[in-house]
Amino acid sequence: MNVAIYPGSFDPITNGHLDIIERSSRLFDRLIVAVLKNPNKKSLFTVEERIEMIKGAVSHIKNVEVDHFSGLLVDFARKKNAKIIVKGLRAVSDFEYELQMALMNKKLYGELETIFIMTNTKYSFLSSSIVKEVASLGGCVKDLVPPVVEEKLREKFKNK
Amino acid sequence: MNVAIYPGSFDPITNGHLDIIERSSRLFDRLIVAVLKNPNKKSLFTVEERIEMIKGAVSHIKNVEVDHFSGLLVDFARKKNAKIIVKGLRAVSDFEYELQMALMNKKLYGELETIFIMTNTKYSFLSSSIVKEVASLGGCVKDLVPPVVEEKLREKFKNK
Amino acid sequence: MNVAIYPGSFDPITNGHLDIIERSSRLFDRLIVAVLKNPNKKSLFTVEERIEMIKGAVSHIKNVEVDHFSGLLVDFARKKNAKIIVKGLRAVSDFEYELQMALMNKKLYGELETIFIMTNTKYSFLSSSIVKEVASLGGCVKDLVPPVVEEKLREKFKNK
Amino acid sequence: MNVAIYPGSFDPITNGHLDIIERSSRLFDRLIVAVLKNPNKKSLFTVEERIEMIKGAVSHIKNVEVDHFSGLLVDFARKKNAKIIVKGLRAVSDFEYELQMALMNKKLYGELETIFIMTNTKYSFLSSSIVKEVASLGGCVKDLVPPVVEEKLREKFKNK
Amino acid sequence: MNVAIYPGSFDPITNGHLDIIERSSRLFDRLIVAVLKNPNKKSLFTVEERIEMIKGAVSHIKNVEVDHFSGLLVDFARKKNAKIIVKGLRAVSDFEYELQMALMNKKLYGELETIFIMTNTKYSFLSSSIVKEVASLGGCVKDLVPPVVEEKLREKFKNK
Amino acid sequence: MNVAIYPGSFDPITNGHLDIIERSSRLFDRLIVAVLKNPNKKSLFTVEERIEMIKGAVSHIKNVEVDHFSGLLVDFARKKNAKIIVKGLRAVSDFEYELQMALMNKKLYGELETIFIMTNTKYSFLSSSIVKEVASLGGCVKDLVPPVVEEKLREKFKNK
Repeated sequence: MNVAIYPGSFDPITNGHLDIIERSSRLFDRLIVAVLKNPNKKSLFTVEERIEMIKGAVSHIKNVEVDHFSGLLVDFARKKNAKIIVKGLRAVSDFEYELQMALMNKKLYGELETIFIMTNTKYSFLSSSIVKEVASLGGCVKDLVPPVVEEKLREKFKNK
Repeated sequence: MNVAIYPGSFDPITNGHLDIIERSSRLFDRLIVAVLKNPNKKSLFTVEERIEMIKGAVSHIKNVEVDHFSGLLVDFARKKNAKIIVKGLRAVSDFEYELQMALMNKKLYGELETIFIMTNTKYSFLSSSIVKEVASLGGCVKDLVPPVVEEKLREKFKNK
Repeated sequence: MNVAIYPGSFDPITNGHLDIIERSSRLFDRLIVAVLKNPNKKSLFTVEERIEMIKGAVSHIKNVEVDHFSGLLVDFARKKNAKIIVKGLRAVSDFEYELQMALMNKKLYGELETIFIMTNTKYSFLSSSIVKEVASLGGCVKDLVPPVVEEKLREKFKNK
Repeated sequence: MNVAIYPGSFDPITNGHLDIIERSSRLFDRLIVAVLKNPNKKSLFTVEERIEMIKGAVSHIKNVEVDHFSGLLVDFARKKNAKIIVKGLRAVSDFEYELQMALMNKKLYGELETIFIMTNTKYSFLSSSIVKEVASLGGCVKDLVPPVVEEKLREKFKNK
Repeated sequence: MNVAIYPGSFDPITNGHLDIIERSSRLFDRLIVAVLKNPNKKSLFTVEERIEMIKGAVSHIKNVEVDHFSGLLVDFARKKNAKIIVKGLRAVSDFEYELQMALMNKKLYGELETIFIMTNTKYSFLSSSIVKEVASLGGCVKDLVPPVVEEKLREKFKNK
Repeated sequence: MNVAIYPGSFDPITNGHLDIIERSSRLFDRLIVAVLKNPNKKSLFTVEERIEMIKGAVSHIKNVEVDHFSGLLVDFARKKNAKIIVKGLRAVSDFEYELQMALMNKKLYGELETIFIMTNTKYSFLSSSIVKEVASLGGCVKDLVPPVVEEKLREKFKNK
C-alpha cells in the first residue's frame, strides 16, 4: 500500500492546499495531511484549530486523514510507514527551498521520495501568509480559502 | 486622466526609487508616491520623516505628489481613483514576489493594473535595507541616496 | 498623447496576447500592435496573415491599431512617435530576456520606456510555439487562441 | 492500478534518467518509459536504438516497460490508460519549461497529473546533450551513462 | 601576493564551507576565513566557538588562517590588504543575493573583486541553518559537518 | 604560477568580455583568452578574425595572451597546465548553464576549478549575439564593443 504524507504549517489551509490534496489523493492509496507543530514559529491558529479546519475541508475525500507532527518529518514518515512526501510547487523560489528539503530528507532517510505537483495556476499567487495579511486588513478572502476558514479568519480579526 | 500609484516603504527613499519616479511620472498624468504605514514592521524613519525626504527629492517633478496609506493598497487606489500601480523590478526574486502581489491585487480589484519598470542597471544592487546596513556601519552612501537622505542617515547613526 | 507599442512575432496571436492588448489599451491613448517581420526566422504564417488575424481579434477595441516593422524596434518607435513599449511577462525566463532587450533599447533610445504587464495566470503556460505544436499534432486549441486563429491553424495543418 | 508514463527523447538514456526510472518504479504499479519519435528533431540514435539501450538498462526492474509514441503525449496516455506523467527536475530552467508542459497537458486532458522528482544531485549536471557533446570530442562518459550506452557512443564517434 | 578572504557567519562551519576553503586555498597565496561578528543576529555559537571549530577543521591546510570582523567587509579587506573575496554559490537565490553584495562591495571599494565558486553538488542542499535545525530535532548530521562540529552540536542540544 | 583560462566564442569580443579580462588578469599570473573553434556552430567572424580583434583589444594588458582550441576545454587546460577557468556571470540563466558546464568539467578533470566573476552592471544586457543583431540592423554599437570591433562590424554589414 502506498502511503503519502502532505506536510505543512497550514496556518490556515487555503484552496491551493486543498487542490493539491484532492489531486494527490487520487495518486496514492492513503494520504496523510500532516500539520507541523513548530514551537519556534508564531502561528495565527493553534495546531488543533488548524487540524479542525483541514478536517472540515477534506471530509469529502475518503482516503485522506489529518494528523500532526513535531520533530523531523523523516521520523514521522518512518512511524507512519510512508515513503512518499507530496509537495506543491508554485514558483522558482519554492522550487529551490523544496529541493533543499527534499535532498536533506533523502540524506536522512534514503527510501523516502519527495514528489512535486504544480499548483493550479489559479492559485499560483496564494499562500497562507498572504491570506492572513489580506484578512487582517479587512480584505475579502472568499474563493481563496474553504468557507470554514473564511469564517474563522473573520472571527480572529473582527476586533481589529 | 491616468492616475498611477507608486507604493513602498521608502525607509528611506534611494536613488533607485527616484529613478523609477522620474521615469514613470512621464508615463501618466499624475503619480502618487504612497508610503506604507505598517505598524507591524520596524522602520528606521517615521512615516513623517520618510514623506519629508521623498518630498525633498521629488520637488522638481510637477505631476508627483506624496501620500501615505495603511491597510490594503487596493482600498487606497480606489479612494484615489487610481487604476495603475507602478513597481520597479531589479531581480528574479523581486519578480516572483511582485507577481504574487500583482495577482492578489487584481483578484481584490479587477480593474487595477500593475505595471513594472526595470530598475536602471546602475542601481540594480540598491535597496533601502542595504543602504541602512552600510550607513549603520559607517560606509559612504553618497550616489546611492538623495543628499537629504544621506544627511538624515548620518544623523541617525552618528552616535553608533 | 501617450502612444505605446506592443511588439512581437504573433505567429499566431494567442488569447494571452489578446489579454495584454485589452488591458494595456486602457492605460494609453493609442496602442500599436507591431508585427516583427524577421526574414531570418521561419514562421508558420506570413506577416499579412498575422496582421489579418490580429485585426480580426482586436476589432472591438477602439484605440488599437495593427502595423508591422522590420529593422530595429527603436527606429519604428521613433517613426511612430511612441515612447512606450509594452511587454507581457509570464515567467522568470521571459524576465531575463526581456530585461536584456529593454536595457538595450534604452541604450539605443534613451527616452524609450519598456513597461511590463504580468500575463493572466490562466494563460501563463501559453505561447505561440506551444499552440502551433499542439495544433500540428491534432490537439484542440480552443480557448487558447481567438476563433479566427483556431480556424486558420486547422487549415494549415489539415493535410498533415 | 496506477500506471505512470516517463516520457522523453532518451537520445541516449543517461544515469540520471535511470535514477528517475528506478525511484519512480517504486511509486507506481506500472511504469512506461516512452520514447518520443519526433521527425522534426535531429537525433543521434534511431528510436529503435534508443529503445534497445533503455531495455538493456532497465531489465532488472520488473514493473517497467519501454514503448514509443509520436503525436501528443496526452493521446498516448489515454491509450495506455495512464493518468500520471513522471518528470525529473534538475534546475530552475527545467522547472519553467516543465511547468508550462504540465499545464498544457492538464488543459488537454484534465485527469492527467504530472509529478516531478528531483534529480539526484550527483547527476544534476547531466543531460543527453552534454553526454553527446563530451563523447563526440573524445571525453570519457563512464559513470554518466549505462555501459551499453557508453559502448554505443564509442561506436558512433569512433571515426570522428 | 594574492590574499583572499572567505567571509561568513559559519554558525557552524559545514562540510560545504570546508570544501570551498580547500579548493580556494589552492587558488591564492593566502586565504583568510573571516567570521562575521554581527551583534544584531542571534547565533547558536559564539564567535570564539565558531573560530575554534573552523581552526580544528582547517588545520591541515597551510595557507589558511582564521580571523573575525565586525563592521564593513570592505574595511576588513583593506586592513588585511586583500583584494579578493571568495563566495560559494549553491542556488539561484544565493546568486541574486551574492550579486547584490558583490556590486555593493565593489561600489565601496573599487579594487575589490568577488569571485564565486560553485558548491560541490553533494553539499548543494547544505547550510548552517538546516544543519542546526536537523541537529536540534535529534537528526544525524554526520557527513554534513566536520567531526568537531558534530560533537559541539550534540552538546548544545543534548538537553533538548 | 597560477594560469587561468577565459574561454568563449568571442564572436565578437564585447566590452563586457574586456571588463572580465581586465579584472581577472589582476587575479592570476597569466590569463589565456581561448577562442573556441566549433565547426558545428555558425559564426560571423572566423577564428583568425576573432583572435585578431581580441589581440587588438587586450594589447595593453601584460599577462594576457590569446589562443584558440577545439575539442574539450579540459584537454586544452591540461595542455596549458592551467587549473583555473574564468567565466563571467550576468544573469540567472547564465548561472544554470555555467554551473552545469563547471560540474561536467570538474568531473572530467578533478583539479580544475571554475571561478565566476559578476559582469559589471553597465554591461549586464550585453552579449555577442545582441551586438550582432543590433549592428546587422544598422544600430550603433559604440560603447558596447572595442573600436576595432565596431569597425569590423560596420564592414561586415555595410552591404546589407
